[in-house]
Amino acid sequence: MMRQAHSAWSRSKDGDEAIKAWVWLTEPDPLPTGAAAPLAGVGFGVKDVIDVAGMPTRSGSPATSPAPASWDASCVAQLRAAGAVPIGKTVTAEFAYASPGPTRNPRLLTHTPGGSSSGSAAAVAAGMVDMALGTQTGGSMIRPAAFCGVVGFKPTFGRVHRQGMSVLCDSLDTIGWFSRSVEQSRAIASVLLPQKIAAQPPTRPPRVALLACEAIGTLAPAARQALEDCAARLRDQGASVITPELDSDLKTLLPLHTQTMYAELARGLLPVLQSPQGDLISPVLRDAVMQGLKMSYADYVQCQHTRGELARQWLERFGDIDILITPSAPGPAPAGLQSTGSSAFNRVWSLLGWPALHLPTGLTDNGLPVGVQCVARPDQDHALLAWAADWHERIAPTVNAGQR
Amino acid sequence: MMRQAHSAWSRSKDGDEAIKAWVWLTEPDPLPTGAAAPLAGVGFGVKDVIDVAGMPTRSGSPATSPAPASWDASCVAQLRAAGAVPIGKTVTAEFAYASPGPTRNPRLLTHTPGGSSSGSAAAVAAGMVDMALGTQTGGSMIRPAAFCGVVGFKPTFGRVHRQGMSVLCDSLDTIGWFSRSVEQSRAIASVLLPQKIAAQPPTRPPRVALLACEAIGTLAPAARQALEDCAARLRDQGASVITPELDSDLKTLLPLHTQTMYAELARGLLPVLQSPQGDLISPVLRDAVMQGLKMSYADYVQCQHTRGELARQWLERFGDIDILITPSAPGPAPAGLQSTGSSAFNRVWSLLGWPALHLPTGLTDNGLPVGVQCVARPDQDHALLAWAADWHERIAPTVNAGQR
Repeated sequence: MMRQAHSAWSRSKDGDEAIKAWVWLTEPDPLPTGAAAPLAGVGFGVKDVIDVAGMPTRSGSPATSPAPASWDASCVAQLRAAGAVPIGKTVTAEFAYASPGPTRNPRLLTHTPGGSSSGSAAAVAAGMVDMALGTQTGGSMIRPAAFCGVVGFKPTFGRVHRQGMSVLCDSLDTIGWFSRSVEQSRAIASVLLPQKIAAQPPTRPPRVALLACEAIGTLAPAARQALEDCAARLRDQGASVITPELDSDLKTLLPLHTQTMYAELARGLLPVLQSPQGDLISPVLRDAVMQGLKMSYADYVQCQHTRGELARQWLERFGDIDILITPSAPGPAPAGLQSTGSSAFNRVWSLLGWPALHLPTGLTDNGLPVGVQCVARPDQDHALLAWAADWHERIAPTVNAGQR
Repeated sequence: MMRQAHSAWSRSKDGDEAIKAWVWLTEPDPLPTGAAAPLAGVGFGVKDVIDVAGMPTRSGSPATSPAPASWDASCVAQLRAAGAVPIGKTVTAEFAYASPGPTRNPRLLTHTPGGSSSGSAAAVAAGMVDMALGTQTGGSMIRPAAFCGVVGFKPTFGRVHRQGMSVLCDSLDTIGWFSRSVEQSRAIASVLLPQKIAAQPPTRPPRVALLACEAIGTLAPAARQALEDCAARLRDQGASVITPELDSDLKTLLPLHTQTMYAELARGLLPVLQSPQGDLISPVLRDAVMQGLKMSYADYVQCQHTRGELARQWLERFGDIDILITPSAPGPAPAGLQSTGSSAFNRVWSLLGWPALHLPTGLTDNGLPVGVQCVARPDQDHALLAWAADWHERIAPTVNAGQR
C-alpha cells in the first residue's frame, strides 16, 4: 500500500522543516479517488523542472516566472489518469545543473542528498511520499537515489514523453522516478512505460557483468564492498557473474557527455542569460554556459557522430549480458551541502541512453546508504525492473523499511 | 539586403488584412541595431508554437494561455544575438497538426498556403518579412514553402535546439526557416547551424538522384513537369542525374511516421485534453489523440527499432548520392482553406530526420508556385544549402523577385 495523497501532503507539510525537500505543496482532496485505478489516490512529488497544473515551475532559480503552469506535463497527466495525485514540487539544483538547493539528506542531515533531483529523492527517503518524479542529464536520478537510499529509475532515453518538462539538454534529459521499493517503481513503469508484464518472476537467472569502473574514479571502501557483496549474493543465487575488461573504454565516453551537455545547456540557457533576469544565474552555471557557447556546431555534430558510433559498438560488446552491475557513486553521500557529489559513474549511461536503476543494498556504520547501479541495454526497462525487484526482495529486504 | 524590422512590421501591420499571416505584432525600435552583426536589424516572424519574450504563445488554439512568454526560445535568442529582430507571431494550424488557421495563400487568395507553418510561409511569400521560423513534424515546413513559393529549409533532426518550442512529437519536431532566397536561408543557417562556410561555390557537380515517388502519390502534371525540368536543367549544367528504384521502399516508411506521430502527439496533448480547456480541442485533433493513445508502448518501441534499422539501411542505399530531388507536394496549392494539403512527400524525410529544402522553380499559368524538394543525408545541411543556392541562381533566378 503506497502512501495516499492527503497523508503524504500532511506529513510533507509538517515534516519538512529540517529536510527542505519541497518548494511547493498543495493540499489534495482528502477523499479517496478512483479506487479501481492502478495508483488510486497515491500522492507523489514532482521535481520543480516538470509542470503541474496550478503550481509554478521555478527550476531552482529566481530567474524563472512565479506564474502557475496551465497544464500538467505529459508524465504528470499520465500518472493522474492512473489515479495518482501530485501533492507538490520538489527542490532541484539550479536548472537541474550543479548549484544545490537547501535540501538535506534525511539519513544524515549534515550530508548532501545528491542532485539535481534532490528534493524528490529526499522526500521519498524521508517517507513523506512513496513516489516522486525526477530527471537525469548526467547523474541527477541515480546519484540522489544512492545518497538517500531509495530506488531510483532512469528509463531508456526518449521513452517517457517530455512535454511540460523544461528540457535544456535535448539529447540527454530523461524523466525518471524515485520509490521506496522496486515493486513500486514497476507500478509507476506500468503507467509511464505501459506494457503487459508477466506476473511471475523472471524464469532464468540473469547473465550479470560486474564493472568496478576504477578507471573512472576511486571507490570508497563502502562502495566497493557493496558492489562485491552484491556480486557474491547474486552468484549464490545462481546468476552467472563475469567481470569484463571495459573500464578504460567506458572512460572514453565521459568527455563526449561533457561536450554534449555543455553545448546543449548553453543554447538552452542563452535566452535566460540574455534576459533582464540573466543576472540571477549563478556564476557556476554561467561558466558552464560560456564553456558550451565556445563549442562550434561542427564539433558538436562530430561529437554526436562519435557518440552514435560508440553506442552501436557498446551494444555489440554487451553481447549476451543481461545486466551490468556498477557503482552508483564513488561512495556514500559526502558531508556538506555545497556540492551534490560526483556523477562520474552515471554519465556514460546518460550519454548512451541506457536504462539504469539504483538498488539500495545496505547502510554504512553511520547510517548512510550504499547500493549498486544496475544497467541494461535500451528498451530492456521492464526486464531490468523485474530482475531488480527479485533481487531487492532477496538481497536487501530490510534496508528501506526503516523510516516508515 | 533583407527587410529591416521596422519596415517589416509596418508592412505586416498594414498588409495583412487579406492574407492573415500574423496573430501578434510588436512594433520594433525604428533605429537600426548592431550594424556589425550578421543579421543586423533584419525583421523576422516566428511560428506561434515558438516562444518570443513578451509575446503570448497560442499554438493556434484557444485552449492555450494568453500570458506572454518570459523568455525567447533558444533559436529566437540565437537570431537576436546575431542582430535579427522578431516582429511577431505567425499563424499555425492547431497545435501544429491539421486544423488550419485563417491564413490565405498570397499567390492566390482562394487557395491554401499549406500548413502547419502557414503564417510564416505566407508572410515571407507576401514580402512582409524576408525570414520566418517554422517547425516540421510531417510536412509543415516543406509543404507551405511549396504552396507559397518560398524557400523552406528543414535541417537535420536534433541540430537546432528546441528549448522554448512547444514540442509534442519529441522524436520528429524540427525547427526550420522560410526565406525568399537560398542565400538568405544560408545566412540563417550560419547563425543556427554555425559553421565556417567556404566562400566559393561547390567545386564539383553534385551526384543527383531523381525520385518521382509515384508509389506515394499521384503527381499533378505541373509538379511532374517541375521535377523533370529541374532534372533536365541540372543535367545541362553537368550534374549526373540517376533515377534509382526506391519508390516502393520509400512508401514502407510512411506508416512508421504515422504511428510515431500519433503515439507522441497523443501523450503530448493528454494534459490539455484532461484540463478544463480540453473541450476547446477540435474534433480532428481529438481523434488523432484518441488514435495515438490506443497504440501500446510495446508497439511504439517496436516502431522506433524498425525506424532505426531502416534509417541505417537508407544511409547505405543512398551510396554516393549527394542530393535527392523529389516532389515537395503532389501539385500546386489546392483550392480552398479547409485543408492544408498532403504531406505524403515530406513525411519520410521527417521520419528519417534528413535535411530537406524546398526550391521554388516556377509558376503555373494561374500564378501558383511549383518547385522541388531537395534532400541530403544527415548533417549535410551546409552542402545541401550551397548546392541549392547555386541552382537557385542559375535555374530560377526570377521566380521570387516578383513581389518586392
